[in-house]
Amino acid sequence: MQTDIGIFEGNKVMNFNGIEFIEKKRDGLPHNEEEFHAFIEAVMHKTIPDYQISAWLMAAFLNGLDDDELIYFTLALAGSGKTMIYPPEERIIDKHSTGGVGDKTTLVLVPLVAACGARISKLSGPGLGYTGGTIDKLESIPGINMHLSEDEFRGQVDKIGCAISGHSVKLAPAEGKFYKLRDVTGTVPSIPLITASIISKKLAGGAYGYLFDVKCGSGAFMNDIEKARELAQKLVEISKKLGKECVAVITDMEQPLGEWTGNSAEVREAIEILSGSGPSDTRELCLTLAGHMLNMSGRAGTADEGTQLAAQALDNGTALKKFEELISAQNGDSSVARDPERVLPRASSVCEIRSDRKGYLSRLDALLIGEGLRALGGGRLTQEDIIDPSVAIQLLKKVGDKVCQGDVLLRIYYNHDEQLLSALSYVNKCWQVGDSAVKRKLIIDMVY
Amino acid sequence: MQTDIGIFEGNKVMNFNGIEFIEKKRDGLPHNEEEFHAFIEAVMHKTIPDYQISAWLMAAFLNGLDDDELIYFTLALAGSGKTMIYPPEERIIDKHSTGGVGDKTTLVLVPLVAACGARISKLSGPGLGYTGGTIDKLESIPGINMHLSEDEFRGQVDKIGCAISGHSVKLAPAEGKFYKLRDVTGTVPSIPLITASIISKKLAGGAYGYLFDVKCGSGAFMNDIEKARELAQKLVEISKKLGKECVAVITDMEQPLGEWTGNSAEVREAIEILSGSGPSDTRELCLTLAGHMLNMSGRAGTADEGTQLAAQALDNGTALKKFEELISAQNGDSSVARDPERVLPRASSVCEIRSDRKGYLSRLDALLIGEGLRALGGGRLTQEDIIDPSVAIQLLKKVGDKVCQGDVLLRIYYNHDEQLLSALSYVNKCWQVGDSAVKRKLIIDMVY
Repeated sequence: MQTDIGIFEGNKVMNFNGIEFIEKKRDGLPHNEEEFHAFIEAVMHKTIPDYQISAWLMAAFLNGLDDDELIYFTLALAGSGKTMIYPPEERIIDKHSTGGVGDKTTLVLVPLVAACGARISKLSGPGLGYTGGTIDKLESIPGINMHLSEDEFRGQVDKIGCAISGHSVKLAPAEGKFYKLRDVTGTVPSIPLITASIISKKLAGGAYGYLFDVKCGSGAFMNDIEKARELAQKLVEISKKLGKECVAVITDMEQPLGEWTGNSAEVREAIEILSGSGPSDTRELCLTLAGHMLNMSGRAGTADEGTQLAAQALDNGTALKKFEELISAQNGDSSVARDPERVLPRASSVCEIRSDRKGYLSRLDALLIGEGLRALGGGRLTQEDIIDPSVAIQLLKKVGDKVCQGDVLLRIYYNHDEQLLSALSYVNKCWQVGDSAVKRKLIIDMVY
Repeated sequence: MQTDIGIFEGNKVMNFNGIEFIEKKRDGLPHNEEEFHAFIEAVMHKTIPDYQISAWLMAAFLNGLDDDELIYFTLALAGSGKTMIYPPEERIIDKHSTGGVGDKTTLVLVPLVAACGARISKLSGPGLGYTGGTIDKLESIPGINMHLSEDEFRGQVDKIGCAISGHSVKLAPAEGKFYKLRDVTGTVPSIPLITASIISKKLAGGAYGYLFDVKCGSGAFMNDIEKARELAQKLVEISKKLGKECVAVITDMEQPLGEWTGNSAEVREAIEILSGSGPSDTRELCLTLAGHMLNMSGRAGTADEGTQLAAQALDNGTALKKFEELISAQNGDSSVARDPERVLPRASSVCEIRSDRKGYLSRLDALLIGEGLRALGGGRLTQEDIIDPSVAIQLLKKVGDKVCQGDVLLRIYYNHDEQLLSALSYVNKCWQVGDSAVKRKLIIDMVY
């Protein structure tokens, strides 16, 4: 892998006054490129204290950043460490989800798109919030290495067209510093700060085109469709101004995606999709996203054509074969692809939640299910918590489905009674049965 | 002196979530009384990190605090340490200036008002910014003790009707913590935060009535008359809601007050005023402020009557006599009152600034004179700097005065050539001579 040295290395340290920098944003004035570079440099050299960074973050949260500022800030973050460089003609695609409950699309898309001839480089952050991230989910597979070196990562993309690995701290390290501070200062849900955070990591990752899946609903970062649309538009706008191909899809996260939530359970569901079966909502979403990725990569003339190619790959076994290759390349037990039930752990105790009335499922709250899964041990409260990959919540009915009295709505797979009790305090409140059938639309909007 | 234990001592520590507290203010929602108590408790127990306090400060800066919040915040700050308690019938008066260049009114007012029979308790903060504070100025007098114990302070107010001392850290200690953090996070010039800061210290000081002198102009905290008026109104409004008598006077600080700036020089000018002479602007302001203080204390039926009483005390020697008593009670060399030239140090080298044209002085910038004085050693850059009490800048002309070519405008009294050079870089730019005589109004507005 070729890497670029940090843009600041060897540069002269600019004179930077933290208080003046904060006051400017406090007063709603724009920062210029040099100021952002000096700011990030001060953050990296620890010459600005955390209490000044957090005062600035709150000022930026409340007064915003304009597009020029956003580009300077994003570039400065991206340049705070090493940058991966791929030849543009490889048209490497990266994919990012803002995160949700039961979101296993990455597990499907990476092998699926690679099976159709595109190259995909997926550097994934750690799971934050309710449930595990992509890394945690794949770590359900025995033997798998989710922390590839730069050379291993690049070599694998060259050889089999895809790789998934945890973020190297060397990529956009300043972004990590900001992320940690935003998390504890109430400055997370800001469109410009989120945009800079996401794109800076993508820039450092070196891909040619980005697919953003912006989740919207109770189980997502963004509850509000207007905010989700604003974020999607900003991600596309800034990425394009930075010379990247980009598509953003806004998808529903009011209820979880698919039938399963839980780390090993989501790998199993991804394998079902890759085998040409699985829940139709998950399949539909993966095919739509794959279509756009294949279009950006040049493997399909249009997104629709890409979707057709991807559907063939799911149905003719090539996607599953690529998944096997991927797991095998990363030292995992690739027999998981053919016999997931044997390879993947599943908690042995089951608790069923049944409907007390007939009607139609009208609510299946993703946030509460996410909290329930975390209570089972399937997510982290602190970075130190160890995830239990075997626990899961199965969703037998989705919003709009017909329900008879006594029907099982959810199954909780758990290991410890006290974790079950804790989870039930969320899960018992997560569902509602009403009188009319209202289906939810999974793909809410697209931004090109 | 009676003292009250901190309101939190012995109370159960409330469960406090710093992030939720920040988010509430970030979203423009009001905090309740319990939240402020828990916040201040967390600050005092250091269970909330500085980066969270500063994020909240910026949110409060930009989204404001309503009057209820301001009262809860102020009370919580005031209750973070000991509180002085005086019998209300003593009608003890306290006076606070937001600070300016050449502001020696406290030195005059404390003995003047006490000479008229009122009781005045003056706890003074350290000098911040350009020039020294009241404590630094009085420390020009050999032997004086400006750090009285609580018992000494209270005993002296009982005995001679007045005392001036540095703030005990035991009074409103949380306020000090906020002040330091505001100073380095760009959150100083906020009306609600300033109001809470000022009134919390006054509350802990235990007086019955407050006189606020809100300075406005280049040498003050507030440059803008609208902002100064807003602060004055808020100070009066909140003080009254807290059951206090209160008057605020907005005074000009576009040019320095009086003829002299510099620590010992301002004591000398105060003694001139107390002797019935001195510059008319300083005398006029002191008499107006004294009138209101005497009215609040019950020694005069109206402020005008108080002003007449005070004028008599300046002219008949009783004010100067009270000053002697005050200095003597605090172990200072009280002969300073009769022979200031002998007792007070003055730098021996003098540099004169003359006008290069005739006309009328149109500008005499208080900020630049303040910076010049600091460059001479008369103010601090850091809390550790030691003040040189002997340096001074004398203002021979004030704005609106007629000026002939070659007239001396300012005299700089200095001790070191390099300090003079540094001071000149400010002082040479501080004045302007124009064609028309425009006097500045010293008392801009009053708020009751």
